[in-house]
Amino acid sequence: MRYSKKSMKIRMDYNNMMSSVLGKEGFTEKQLSDMTDDLSDAFDAVEKGKGKGMMGWVDLPYNQDEIVEDILETAKNIRKDYEYFVVLGIGGSALGPIAAFQAICHMHYNDLPRRKRKGPKFYVEDNVDPERMQALLDVVEVEKTMFNVVTKSGSTSETMTQYLIINSILREKLGDKAKDHIIATTSKNAGNLIKIANKENYKTFYIPDGVGGRFSELCPVGLLPAAVVGIDIKGLLAGAKFMMEECNSANVKKNPALMAAALQHLSMQNGKNIGVMMPYADGLKFIADWYAQLWAESLGKNKTLDGKDCNVGQTPVKALGVTDQHSQVQLYAEGPFDKVITFIGVDEYRASVEIPNGCEEYPNVNFLCGHTMNELIQAERQATEYAVTKAGKLNYTIMLPQLNEFTLGQLLMYFMLQTAYAGALLNIDTFNQPGVEEGKNATYALLGRPGYDEKRTELANAPQKQNKYII
Amino acid sequence: MRYSKKSMKIRMDYNNMMSSVLGKEGFTEKQLSDMTDDLSDAFDAVEKGKGKGMMGWVDLPYNQDEIVEDILETAKNIRKDYEYFVVLGIGGSALGPIAAFQAICHMHYNDLPRRKRKGPKFYVEDNVDPERMQALLDVVEVEKTMFNVVTKSGSTSETMTQYLIINSILREKLGDKAKDHIIATTSKNAGNLIKIANKENYKTFYIPDGVGGRFSELCPVGLLPAAVVGIDIKGLLAGAKFMMEECNSANVKKNPALMAAALQHLSMQNGKNIGVMMPYADGLKFIADWYAQLWAESLGKNKTLDGKDCNVGQTPVKALGVTDQHSQVQLYAEGPFDKVITFIGVDEYRASVEIPNGCEEYPNVNFLCGHTMNELIQAERQATEYAVTKAGKLNYTIMLPQLNEFTLGQLLMYFMLQTAYAGALLNIDTFNQPGVEEGKNATYALLGRPGYDEKRTELANAPQKQNKYII
Repeated sequence: MRYSKKSMKIRMDYNNMMSSVLGKEGFTEKQLSDMTDDLSDAFDAVEKGKGKGMMGWVDLPYNQDEIVEDILETAKNIRKDYEYFVVLGIGGSALGPIAAFQAICHMHYNDLPRRKRKGPKFYVEDNVDPERMQALLDVVEVEKTMFNVVTKSGSTSETMTQYLIINSILREKLGDKAKDHIIATTSKNAGNLIKIANKENYKTFYIPDGVGGRFSELCPVGLLPAAVVGIDIKGLLAGAKFMMEECNSANVKKNPALMAAALQHLSMQNGKNIGVMMPYADGLKFIADWYAQLWAESLGKNKTLDGKDCNVGQTPVKALGVTDQHSQVQLYAEGPFDKVITFIGVDEYRASVEIPNGCEEYPNVNFLCGHTMNELIQAERQATEYAVTKAGKLNYTIMLPQLNEFTLGQLLMYFMLQTAYAGALLNIDTFNQPGVEEGKNATYALLGRPGYDEKRTELANAPQKQNKYII
Repeated sequence: MRYSKKSMKIRMDYNNMMSSVLGKEGFTEKQLSDMTDDLSDAFDAVEKGKGKGMMGWVDLPYNQDEIVEDILETAKNIRKDYEYFVVLGIGGSALGPIAAFQAICHMHYNDLPRRKRKGPKFYVEDNVDPERMQALLDVVEVEKTMFNVVTKSGSTSETMTQYLIINSILREKLGDKAKDHIIATTSKNAGNLIKIANKENYKTFYIPDGVGGRFSELCPVGLLPAAVVGIDIKGLLAGAKFMMEECNSANVKKNPALMAAALQHLSMQNGKNIGVMMPYADGLKFIADWYAQLWAESLGKNKTLDGKDCNVGQTPVKALGVTDQHSQVQLYAEGPFDKVITFIGVDEYRASVEIPNGCEEYPNVNFLCGHTMNELIQAERQATEYAVTKAGKLNYTIMLPQLNEFTLGQLLMYFMLQTAYAGALLNIDTFNQPGVEEGKNATYALLGRPGYDEKRTELANAPQKQNKYII
């Protein structure tokens, strides 16, 4: 590592959530201290859950030494022998790999010549749009491609559809050698994909039982694609571990993830049903997408742990600074008091670009000259923070000293812990997703899957659509 | 055109907004008929405003014959002579070009070989992240690049910053020939960029006075980039014109854009402060981004036209089907009753991909075999619609017969008219964006622009941040 861990600690600045800065829209010290018992309970619940049930993800920074070596060795060979690497996966199997790739790799990685990339071109197929599958097949040569099929259950319709299509093409072109072009990342113990993989002799990596899709970036789901595109996965795990240690206190003032959960919980109680995440770095753009799944699917629930009815959950909104200043900030500033904005900033960008002279005659442009883009983006972040604060809108800022594997690992773990604490405060099951079953079952019924006759009848008997309401 | 216009009409199905399907969460015929006078007023206000003030965008399908020819000629030369085409623009100058590119062009356009692309590689630079500018310069050869600088005011800091950097590099490499690598799209009458362009002898296209950034996709802002990447811009304008004609009635049941505005208005009045847009087509992914600016910046206002205080505006949320079924639908189904979901579907995709056999032993995968991806994505769209409807969540669906220039043009005009009607119903100024000034001014102050001493003093005197709130 080229830096001391302490100098790379990410910081959370929540001044603009507090009444001392925000005035009447802000929270008070008393509101925080009134939560002490609830926060202590939430902290304890997470502590007790660690490593059990669906909380296997907290162990990932500690228990993967051998797996990491296997991944690094596999990735080394892929980087050498393949021209394309394609992830077939959706939801948690795609969002983490995309976010890490965008955060660490060159912004136009696939456009770089091979010698600069050092690894294969990288694609993540996380949809079943036929146009997109066709487009992928137009640009990759399957005989030079490694496909990484990722589904824990082995029965995710979208992923298995892609697998069937790709496998058929590979078989046709390469016969038995098709097996050298597929790696399966799946459950070791259950589902179809592990059975298929064992039968076909695919290389496999395992998703631990206690790691759900949206908490899987730090297991082989995320680590293999990351290693293939040259990301330092040991640094990623070291960052996650560092954040685990930063969040080992029930004292909310010493635990940044617990503080974030507390402030978001207070916000939700005060009717802020929207949570905006707005990083000021193109590299962090897809962290907002990854977080959107984590936060929405974990907290969007209609039953408490005691079985009581509820309809909770804050809707995550993805934005990008400075870009969305020209799209969303008008609404954030002047619109309803219904949201909390999380800014993410970076102290030191990995490039510095000067703004040259050449506009002396035009004072409303010339003031930019002599500055750097770095100064401009920092000023715009601070100015936007100032503007929404002045408009009385709740906001806080997470600062990364740099964007690298160690700070990215911290960020991922920070958000996962925040989500676990927030779920405990809401007294819901943070780790399930029963609400997606209805749509899955209706899909099965519509496609004629055996055993879904009852659902087919239900669909047929649903309230009829009327033509007069179609224009 | 390869199709009849009528067969390409987009449809709006709002059954799932109505109590006849949705039950108590739905709206009634009476609620709609009670709005008749308000809707009539909104329709009249838009009719009267057409072509005046900031409503020049309604004329764009009718008054650009000569401009279109100039654009096509220019684009033809660029397609022949340049290897890269880079838009330098932000907000409305970027979102439309990105959306149209994604909708019509090959999904991996830049990865195609030159002979298949037929035009230059395409990039849109809509941020001032120094890492991104550096990355762009790593992958384009400026001496083979046409840069399209787009800013109506000629003083957008981000765009002018990019211009200064690029111009300096071009000057250094190419001397006076730099001018052959820059096209300026800007106001004919005001601002710096037109002055610079005239002095430097750049090719120029004009943004009409009455066309604001978020309503500019159908003027040269959008049309030039579209033509360069091979989009049929006449088809786009024909679609927009067709939709203008579809929306020429004050009768809400005969005017789809007015119906959308009415239903969204009712929803906002009923506390639905979130509007999700979820297209089921990768090609439409960035339509949701374009719409997010249009809707947020137009309706997010703190003053009515009578000068009364308000804080209105619905927060747009971008989603993608089926992908976000695995990320957001848990929340949409089980979470709060705080949103309206707009699905967009496509009847006939531009590719068809079969799902081959190969999983006979695994019934929970095998049911997919023999279907097509097309059937799968349609079933998933219908199933998700069914699931959120069953959960009592307001939703409606826009169906495109195909995704092509003509239907895209319809869609753009539909959303712009919907926004104009919705603004009239809210009695706000739909076309301004005063809320972004505060942030701009604070940026100027922070960067030392002359004339901003007062703002600098204000910033210095703002409530101080406390270290205890930084962890």
